[in-house]
Amino acid sequence: MKKIINDPSQVVQEMLHGIETAHADLIYRPQDSQVIARKVETPSIVGIISGGGSGHEPSHAGFVGKGMLSAAACGEVFTSPSPDQVLTAIKAADNGQGVFLIIKNYSGDVMNFEMAMELAEIEDIKTASVVVDDDIAIEDSSFTAGRRGVAGTVLMHKIIGYYADQGKTLDELKAIADQVNAHLATIGLALTAATVPEVGKPGFEIADDEFEYGIGIHGEPGYRREKMKTSQEMAQELTSQLKGELNWQDGDHYAVLVNGMGATPLVELYIFWQDVARLLADEGLNIDFVKVDEFMTSLDMAGLSLTLLALDDQDWLTALNSPVDTIAWR
Amino acid sequence: MKKIINDPSQVVQEMLHGIETAHADLIYRPQDSQVIARKVETPSIVGIISGGGSGHEPSHAGFVGKGMLSAAACGEVFTSPSPDQVLTAIKAADNGQGVFLIIKNYSGDVMNFEMAMELAEIEDIKTASVVVDDDIAIEDSSFTAGRRGVAGTVLMHKIIGYYADQGKTLDELKAIADQVNAHLATIGLALTAATVPEVGKPGFEIADDEFEYGIGIHGEPGYRREKMKTSQEMAQELTSQLKGELNWQDGDHYAVLVNGMGATPLVELYIFWQDVARLLADEGLNIDFVKVDEFMTSLDMAGLSLTLLALDDQDWLTALNSPVDTIAWR
Repeated sequence: MKKIINDPSQVVQEMLHGIETAHADLIYRPQDSQVIARKVETPSIVGIISGGGSGHEPSHAGFVGKGMLSAAACGEVFTSPSPDQVLTAIKAADNGQGVFLIIKNYSGDVMNFEMAMELAEIEDIKTASVVVDDDIAIEDSSFTAGRRGVAGTVLMHKIIGYYADQGKTLDELKAIADQVNAHLATIGLALTAATVPEVGKPGFEIADDEFEYGIGIHGEPGYRREKMKTSQEMAQELTSQLKGELNWQDGDHYAVLVNGMGATPLVELYIFWQDVARLLADEGLNIDFVKVDEFMTSLDMAGLSLTLLALDDQDWLTALNSPVDTIAWR
Repeated sequence: MKKIINDPSQVVQEMLHGIETAHADLIYRPQDSQVIARKVETPSIVGIISGGGSGHEPSHAGFVGKGMLSAAACGEVFTSPSPDQVLTAIKAADNGQGVFLIIKNYSGDVMNFEMAMELAEIEDIKTASVVVDDDIAIEDSSFTAGRRGVAGTVLMHKIIGYYADQGKTLDELKAIADQVNAHLATIGLALTAATVPEVGKPGFEIADDEFEYGIGIHGEPGYRREKMKTSQEMAQELTSQLKGELNWQDGDHYAVLVNGMGATPLVELYIFWQDVARLLADEGLNIDFVKVDEFMTSLDMAGLSLTLLALDDQDWLTALNSPVDTIAWR
């Protein structure tokens, strides 16, 4: 294992220390917890939190800041944050109007975030939540009942962060989040496996000339392994899977996220994007919003995911384009 | 070679097409050239261009936009742009006040940018330039006489972009750029080699338990190969090399850039940063500005570089912090 780390058991602690010292203008770490919270709070709006296992940076700490998340709970690598850690994030986020939780659909995350909601209710903090399950590749994966939550979660952060800033209530945010989740779909592929520092070897074996469609952000199995293909062929497969799910019509409006898994250079992400763009144009879709970058990574995995959000409500486009002040959303 | 590409000979063309279609609000590509230019021009200021071989994304196209570069010339992978390509960038950048060129110190870049300056003078466009040579690892490397130009170049973009926006003249920008270059130092390390698509195999061999100090952004040899070390030990070595160069004093003010080489996860960059921060604090330095991200990559190389800029003029801090509107500077 070649990694620029010290003690594998201290990876998350040291990373959080790095984040808090590099970005002290934007965020802070409440009482040395595994939580990153924003410094600038707007009173009388609902707080928004997210989180999950670490190893997906910039998710989620990178999206803490004005206009997006109020706080993020950062578990150990590929491990759900504890209910106490999530509760710390909820408390940091609460301004008296309650806290909305954006949870990725993994059994451990759902359980621990829901326990934290119960703990918060005891302390008279109102909460509501959405469970994002945008990954259409697989039903019932290694750590998940139903579909996994992956890179589309970042679009959820952006949209819900905007509406919170607009003064929407907890109930209103819940209704919007459910709508967004119903119009959101992601599918990925991987060329290599990630290596968890405490494990010290790649999470699975994959041949030097193979890649896998539908793989999860923790290396959970996908739906098909093939010999290497061109970017065009990969774009064709992922786009056609998304079409089967979203049933779009000529003239529909979409937002697109091309997400690198950690070790994939930007040059490859942009090549893949222009292949996707051509296919979506052939379908007659209007692409009103595009981001190409790393949003939801899997440590040092090479690969990418493609997220499409049907802009059912054109106001979502305003939400996506609104300025924010975070570490990682640009 | 596992890469998400189509034809290896079309990698740069397709990437540029991807960039122009993803970011059409910010930038355009003059006449299908290998140039990315900003859309919003401010009349009556000096234009700023940079560029070089591709494969270092987000450099340089990602830094085109209001407050930073006016245009970037993007050569083939690890290959200098031609004088004609640089001239296209100069013409796109010119607002009648002349164009300032930020050149990384590689023999091919220096030759071709200087030829483009001569071509521009023939067309009555005034030019001036700085050759950035921030890499302190090596004198006279594979493609360079003197020191190489690496990630510190991005801080040069930021500072000179700010001063251009402030209305400084070509001569004034030249004087500032020379001052910045004299106070700028970078040193890197690599864990793996990059694979150029048209070559199809890694640029050099390195064992599974080794890394190399001082390696260049095209895989040029560094100054020492060692068995894997901890982040702390790597930070100690790079910081001590920079100290030898910059001769800082207790109380001095610095800006820091921790730059990922392409395949290194953010978690490792932040761990390394906090090790560096501790060492610089022990030296009594004031770190007024920090960025931790990918700025000047080397395709799929794993590794990082550390850049320090002595804030000789505190106005440079204002320049570094000023808002910009680009793809990649956040």
